[in-house]
Amino acid sequence: MDYSEESLKLHYKWRGKLDIGYKVPIRNKEDLSLAYTPGVAAACLEIQKDPLKSYELTGRWNTVAVVTNGTAVLGLGDIGPLAGMPVMEGKCVLFKAFGGVDAFPLCVGSKDVSKIIEAVSLIAGSFGGINLEDIAAPACFEVERGLKGALDIPVFHDDQHGTAVVVLAALRNALKIVGKELGGIRAVVCGAGAAGNASARLLVSAGIGEVIMCDRKGSVYRGREGMDPEKASLAAITNREGIKGDLACALKGADVFIGVSAAGLVSPEMVRSMGRDPIVFPMANPVPEILPDEAIKAGAAVVGTGRSDFPNQINNVLAFPGIFRGALDVRASDINEPMKLAASEALAKISEEDGLDRSRILPLPFDPRVRERVAAATARAAESSGVARVSAGKPGV
Amino acid sequence: MDYSEESLKLHYKWRGKLDIGYKVPIRNKEDLSLAYTPGVAAACLEIQKDPLKSYELTGRWNTVAVVTNGTAVLGLGDIGPLAGMPVMEGKCVLFKAFGGVDAFPLCVGSKDVSKIIEAVSLIAGSFGGINLEDIAAPACFEVERGLKGALDIPVFHDDQHGTAVVVLAALRNALKIVGKELGGIRAVVCGAGAAGNASARLLVSAGIGEVIMCDRKGSVYRGREGMDPEKASLAAITNREGIKGDLACALKGADVFIGVSAAGLVSPEMVRSMGRDPIVFPMANPVPEILPDEAIKAGAAVVGTGRSDFPNQINNVLAFPGIFRGALDVRASDINEPMKLAASEALAKISEEDGLDRSRILPLPFDPRVRERVAAATARAAESSGVARVSAGKPGV
Repeated sequence: MDYSEESLKLHYKWRGKLDIGYKVPIRNKEDLSLAYTPGVAAACLEIQKDPLKSYELTGRWNTVAVVTNGTAVLGLGDIGPLAGMPVMEGKCVLFKAFGGVDAFPLCVGSKDVSKIIEAVSLIAGSFGGINLEDIAAPACFEVERGLKGALDIPVFHDDQHGTAVVVLAALRNALKIVGKELGGIRAVVCGAGAAGNASARLLVSAGIGEVIMCDRKGSVYRGREGMDPEKASLAAITNREGIKGDLACALKGADVFIGVSAAGLVSPEMVRSMGRDPIVFPMANPVPEILPDEAIKAGAAVVGTGRSDFPNQINNVLAFPGIFRGALDVRASDINEPMKLAASEALAKISEEDGLDRSRILPLPFDPRVRERVAAATARAAESSGVARVSAGKPGV
Repeated sequence: MDYSEESLKLHYKWRGKLDIGYKVPIRNKEDLSLAYTPGVAAACLEIQKDPLKSYELTGRWNTVAVVTNGTAVLGLGDIGPLAGMPVMEGKCVLFKAFGGVDAFPLCVGSKDVSKIIEAVSLIAGSFGGINLEDIAAPACFEVERGLKGALDIPVFHDDQHGTAVVVLAALRNALKIVGKELGGIRAVVCGAGAAGNASARLLVSAGIGEVIMCDRKGSVYRGREGMDPEKASLAAITNREGIKGDLACALKGADVFIGVSAAGLVSPEMVRSMGRDPIVFPMANPVPEILPDEAIKAGAAVVGTGRSDFPNQINNVLAFPGIFRGALDVRASDINEPMKLAASEALAKISEEDGLDRSRILPLPFDPRVRERVAAATARAAESSGVARVSAGKPGV
């Protein structure tokens, strides 16, 4: 169904989806003297002595900025920072509802990578983490790299890594259904933007047999003309055989299709040309690369999309709330590869325990185990990979 | 009493005084599709067509940033951005409790005026107003001027203008008690920082007979050596007689002392040297320029301080929540002189209605009339001075 009309009406009624309340009593002079002046001075002096006390005496430990410049909002593209705000507010709602995280939306009025990095760096002291959202590639890669280098708090571009974590979880369970091993398969990732790039990289980190990236020009391979640095570095870790050609050619004999590109790019013939029991994740929104029923008719064994009205929705909300919950709980200085892999395995495990079937490879967002398990696994991986600054259970939780 | 120990204990317990909640239902898939994707796209497209819709489809209309760089926090001075955060969170609590405003604290990690202006300008699209807080003079003047020039939303340095508005209200009522007219009196403002500077300017705007500013070097007068631009421009509108000398000399025969300087700078002799029925506002915190009982023994007719444990507390919380409420309600593009004067008069009127007496020249913060009257007066003044973009009662309220 089309939610546009009803949603717009509600947005006019809501006039903002967030509400900044307070947790302290403000009933009389005495309350004011404790929450504000003169009493508050004591907390300030503690932080002046030890800046890390900002995690214990302010809300920083649980506060994340949701930052966009509005250049790649949903499927709408470059609609500008103000127009991106309804999405950022929604994202903050999901952070609180599914992760218990206080998130605040910030739109940055610039497409200049260095200006974005400088502005976010200057205000980072108010936050325990930065979630980058809906920033177009390749700027999103430079912004994330720059901020990770500049800051000692987690910087996470959800369109990249949130998607990658859920794709990997879905793939792990789909492979169990068709009886294949991650190390022995070949996946084709169609779309070399934020989501495709990060998905390919995480699949490589997870030990997949082979990944071939495809963009508008066809397969990505070493030495291809006119690649930006990001794509060149992808070419270096994917497509070892150096297969050259279009998507149809890359898909021949492949075990997995992962689509983060555009509507209708995959034909039934292409699915038929894939290997035994193909796994097909056409995640283009709102219209997938191939519709699930067509893919199944063409022999797909397991199908997942980005949509909630088909089975197996591959949805970031399964990942980012728990990942940030876990990172904040151990005051992680980064969200690194081991944390993403651990989050992905924890997510896959939930559905495996419930019993896998081709239309149930991922849990639903409202399943309370999702937040708990993903957060716990992320926190443990942060500790074992040395980026945790307190241990879970200590201040932070 | 000393609140430090108890307040610190509470800050460790609270771990942040704010709580970012949400106003929308998140019970099921359908709710997600309306508050987030795919439904939210419709609100985004409306704002893309007309950026002013960001005031109707997001929380911008009611959201203010509380911005500091931690260089002049309370009486503590330059303790740094992180150490200023407990105060900024407290300020945000007051914004909500006394103004119904959603306020979010941002600490900016720089003392570079142009960097602060650039960072705040880049994220201003998320907000309907900017409250600058605890930024040291003279940088605070440049930051405010720069942001006012760059942005089409109100930029208000509360340490300056909030203080000035409440001082003027207190003075208006004190003058009624002693039977003097604002146009016929001479006031001495001791301390040429943010609060002293703005108080002197607002008194001049209000039509006071004469103001003499004093700083560490004594009275401020035209042509004095080594004045910064801010002080030079103050010299141009104050001290018309060009009185040169120290505070004691400036106070001889003066009607009003306004202290925003340091403990103990005023002696009983100085008060005795003032004109008939002197009005004395020693507002230095925590220890005033002269203690109220000493001032009264020396002949002061009306005394007000910055402290809540003496009568007549001259407290910013009487002004900024209502001023921003009123400015936001009419989507004001600025908080200008007429709005400050109107807010001050509305505040004074409340106590006048209740019946003035030397220990009751201002209402208490918890008096519900304060927010209502100050907001209404500020909104009306915004409309009549041409900075309102909607009229009160329309979207905004």
